[in-house]
Amino acid sequence: MPAPVAPASQEPSAYERTERTTPTRHRERAHYDRELVHSILDAGYVCHLGFVRDGAPVVLPTLYGRVGDRLYVHGSTGSRPLRAAGRSDAGQGDAGLPVCVTVTHVDGLVLARSAFSHTLNYRSVVVHGTARPVTDEAEMKAALDALVDQVLPGRAADSRPASPKELAATAVLGIELTEVSAKVRDAGPVDSEADVALPFWSGVVPLTTGYGAPVPADDLAPGIPVPGYLTAR
Amino acid sequence: MPAPVAPASQEPSAYERTERTTPTRHRERAHYDRELVHSILDAGYVCHLGFVRDGAPVVLPTLYGRVGDRLYVHGSTGSRPLRAAGRSDAGQGDAGLPVCVTVTHVDGLVLARSAFSHTLNYRSVVVHGTARPVTDEAEMKAALDALVDQVLPGRAADSRPASPKELAATAVLGIELTEVSAKVRDAGPVDSEADVALPFWSGVVPLTTGYGAPVPADDLAPGIPVPGYLTAR
Repeated sequence: MPAPVAPASQEPSAYERTERTTPTRHRERAHYDRELVHSILDAGYVCHLGFVRDGAPVVLPTLYGRVGDRLYVHGSTGSRPLRAAGRSDAGQGDAGLPVCVTVTHVDGLVLARSAFSHTLNYRSVVVHGTARPVTDEAEMKAALDALVDQVLPGRAADSRPASPKELAATAVLGIELTEVSAKVRDAGPVDSEADVALPFWSGVVPLTTGYGAPVPADDLAPGIPVPGYLTAR
Repeated sequence: MPAPVAPASQEPSAYERTERTTPTRHRERAHYDRELVHSILDAGYVCHLGFVRDGAPVVLPTLYGRVGDRLYVHGSTGSRPLRAAGRSDAGQGDAGLPVCVTVTHVDGLVLARSAFSHTLNYRSVVVHGTARPVTDEAEMKAALDALVDQVLPGRAADSRPASPKELAATAVLGIELTEVSAKVRDAGPVDSEADVALPFWSGVVPLTTGYGAPVPADDLAPGIPVPGYLTAR
């Protein structure tokens, strides 16, 4: 990625690189460009949320939504990471929960002649930060909309919004995008000159993801068509 | 999942449930059946590896391979988790690196009438354990084969095995499958009776993953056909 000449807005056009967002290996794959990071995040909706519990790492898959430079995750107020982030624990104040949020898209299998040089083409984003409970009701509602629309843009407006009781049972955590990096590999196999002549097929197998035909709920009321944001896919 | 009547082998047919493999929410989705866990692991090849560095969580996507009740991950001997697991650090002995390894397959988008009840159909496995360096050369070679064959069964035998120099530059970590759980959701949307009549489309959008046409390397020697383990997909 070339360094952008001028920022597109008042926001800096790249995230600041830190020691822990600087990889020890394949530094050429690391990027800090804000638009690139956002595009990778926006191409997905499931992250792997890491936190520390009793000194040991825990990694759980969960939905996320992005609004500007903030990520949101949500869960029951009774779930472990949500509790740990302080919403239900009196006295934790503004401490929050240190987290690492990782989003990965696998784009292709890269088959080299040497087993050692096999790799994947991929796009990933790693966010280091602190998850803090969202307490403002308007922000919470916007975050829940973002979580639904991250999966399927347009769906939040085409569903019943959360009731006060549902809102009370839900905890939303916000994570600022400040210490962030992307990693991208998008190339063919790289073998040594000596290996190129070996009689093994070599190349890239692209991976595809798609949507099957929507399956209506058993109890779907008659006469409700498949919505446009689904048929468009 | 019904409890199996008799174990298929001398191995217990299920992993022992522990406090941290017992979810606080949706316990009905949690499973400990060994065959189910293995089948979810074997359907993938990218895990999210979590560990603790300087007290903070780190989650990195990486390849894995399963051999029996052991998972393997690998990397450069210079990479952070591999170094931390003790291979290059004198005096760490058998300590190893506490890790959490999570594998997730997203199978469908579940659209309920209420925004609150939106969810995903998915299969996931969470492994809590300790990553220990593999030092036995035969085990290391078998692990590297497993890592390649996890992505594409049959490929390890159809590529150049690692040279002594490549082996020396590679660290392999083994993680025992002992504290393991699977989570599975595979159902339609669940709305309250009051919501069912709402005029929002509701159902499941299945997600599909596939393989595109293999793209040969620019420098592929002429006359090498696409191998059967690729055309079979």
